[in-house]
Amino acid sequence: MPTIDLHTHILPERWPDWTARTGYPGWVRLDHAAPGKAVMRQSTAGGAEIAFREVGRNCWDPAARLADMDAADVGVQVLSTVPVMFSYGARPADALDLARLLNDHLAEVCRSAPWAPHDHPHARPLRRFVALGTIPMQDPALASRELERCVRELGMPGVQIGTNVEGRNLDDPGVVDVLRAAQDLGACVFVHPWDMVRHDASGRDRMPRYWLPWLVGMPAETSLAICSVLFGGVLESLPSLRLGFAHGGGSFCFGLGRIRHGFEARPDLCAVRSRVSPGAYAKDHATGRPARFFVDSLVHDPRALAMLVETLGAERIAVGSDYPFPLGESRPGELVRTAAGIDAADRERMLFGSALEFLFGPPASDGLKPPAGN
Amino acid sequence: MPTIDLHTHILPERWPDWTARTGYPGWVRLDHAAPGKAVMRQSTAGGAEIAFREVGRNCWDPAARLADMDAADVGVQVLSTVPVMFSYGARPADALDLARLLNDHLAEVCRSAPWAPHDHPHARPLRRFVALGTIPMQDPALASRELERCVRELGMPGVQIGTNVEGRNLDDPGVVDVLRAAQDLGACVFVHPWDMVRHDASGRDRMPRYWLPWLVGMPAETSLAICSVLFGGVLESLPSLRLGFAHGGGSFCFGLGRIRHGFEARPDLCAVRSRVSPGAYAKDHATGRPARFFVDSLVHDPRALAMLVETLGAERIAVGSDYPFPLGESRPGELVRTAAGIDAADRERMLFGSALEFLFGPPASDGLKPPAGN
Repeated sequence: MPTIDLHTHILPERWPDWTARTGYPGWVRLDHAAPGKAVMRQSTAGGAEIAFREVGRNCWDPAARLADMDAADVGVQVLSTVPVMFSYGARPADALDLARLLNDHLAEVCRSAPWAPHDHPHARPLRRFVALGTIPMQDPALASRELERCVRELGMPGVQIGTNVEGRNLDDPGVVDVLRAAQDLGACVFVHPWDMVRHDASGRDRMPRYWLPWLVGMPAETSLAICSVLFGGVLESLPSLRLGFAHGGGSFCFGLGRIRHGFEARPDLCAVRSRVSPGAYAKDHATGRPARFFVDSLVHDPRALAMLVETLGAERIAVGSDYPFPLGESRPGELVRTAAGIDAADRERMLFGSALEFLFGPPASDGLKPPAGN
Repeated sequence: MPTIDLHTHILPERWPDWTARTGYPGWVRLDHAAPGKAVMRQSTAGGAEIAFREVGRNCWDPAARLADMDAADVGVQVLSTVPVMFSYGARPADALDLARLLNDHLAEVCRSAPWAPHDHPHARPLRRFVALGTIPMQDPALASRELERCVRELGMPGVQIGTNVEGRNLDDPGVVDVLRAAQDLGACVFVHPWDMVRHDASGRDRMPRYWLPWLVGMPAETSLAICSVLFGGVLESLPSLRLGFAHGGGSFCFGLGRIRHGFEARPDLCAVRSRVSPGAYAKDHATGRPARFFVDSLVHDPRALAMLVETLGAERIAVGSDYPFPLGESRPGELVRTAAGIDAADRERMLFGSALEFLFGPPASDGLKPPAGN
């Protein structure tokens, strides 16, 4: 099987002006300033726009992406939107409209893609693009319906959601309703950090410089999301949900010692919704059972990757590059291919087997060991 | 040499009511509800109090602490106040008054302590308690003067400060002034997380449950503090400052791959004050030079400790237990003594050598290798 890159972002080349369409700001547009160069701009109250990111052709052009994939030995990209497009703060119907547009675009890119090279005896054929949809999480009913459309009509294996919905963590009952719908559909859910913790309790912005919301805030945000799921007992009530987290799960795996110790030391504070220790969701080295959730491999450090493998099991780690953004892995899969101390079978799993299992569920008979307890 | 526990907290048994004394709230008192049990209470606007932590006799009684130390094979405790006593939000003169009281108490506890057992041929004799003072960081001039008193008059090796001062990070010019005073005095500075990031940019509290400000917020806060020092170029301008961070440096070491990659990918955002890559402050495996800052060992996980050793060098990691609090290591030094894959010399360094170097500076001729470049 070719390398599957679980974590890449794509936008349509153009879409209607949602600010004009809805009559209120907060929406993003792609301003094509020059051939092959565009600026992402977000409308703000008062009619102004904030230019917040420059992107190139490979952000929207499948052909440019395929060329990059060929150069980097990536067989399949799993596409998802850019988190700033989530629009969870918008009116639900407007966010749904945008999600439908984005999802239709994603599905069309996938349908038009060539088949991926394939030499695995049992795995299903895959096109070179697979997509995770976008859903208006601020309205669980609408989100669940669009999730169902993504899976049943558009043929997607699942969706990407944010680490929080207007400040509500993933243990929020409305979020859990959508996660339940995903479980019932057999859909996977990839969780991406956004809207990061960056202020203290007095409301002071503590990350005004040095890109720290991305370098410190995002890993904290993702650990917060995992902790919310575990402490909230979400995986107890959704035993077959496939949940994955970006950026190697943020700072969760390294912090697990402290998190587990805290749970044991202060159950009055920590075990208020679930009595299962956070450590029980990690890899069980006695039985070999891998962790209860997935992460991508985007940690930029071989020691950190080795710690992920030890903590979660390679069966729960899939190459993810954050392509085409600069904080991503510039050659997707390079860390997994080159990090020392990882055996060949674990490397293979991280290059494609774990992604297949996350996207499509435990394999029955293709030689990829199904996870115990799933 | 006996084990030195670099990270322990102590309070006086009693002190005057600072709320009554100053006429405004926010101060902490110790409410001795029963023999050997007390509740920490903080006054709030409107005359109410918040009870936020129960503590036992070993929080204030040196004899109880010595008994615990003997039982756990800890030779020396490095004492510091509880961060909630920092009072950086108070009027500077009032915070200075409290700091002086706390520092006089710390010094008295140290002076009254027996000598530590000692079999090291060259290291200095140590009493069983060594103290790090507290200083009113909201006023750099007052803080620097009290720092000087701690070192010159009270015989302390340094001070403990918070990860931020009323929301100002450690690259704030006023904070750097105090750090410069510490460098010039040869004093060490131990940085403890407090006032943690826990809200998002819209002001929503994202950590309302599960003790997450302690389990996710503190590691992020400490990584934020380290990043502020490194990206702010603080160690470039203070080349001989000895700086240490609690809780193994929080999520910094695991996040370093991402942090370093971010610095390289977006120098326009990251290299605005210093052109030195964050990775350059970590251990240099080519030369063996250890990291440019210290951390304690409080990570509750042998894999995380091994990653600290690899990333920083054992010369920069000192046992720290957070004694007597429940999120600490219940048997101080146990992780360092038992973690697999660490050689005997590295274990010894973490048990006492690194603490000695942090507290008193690089040894000249006692067999503990001085750090290159210091």
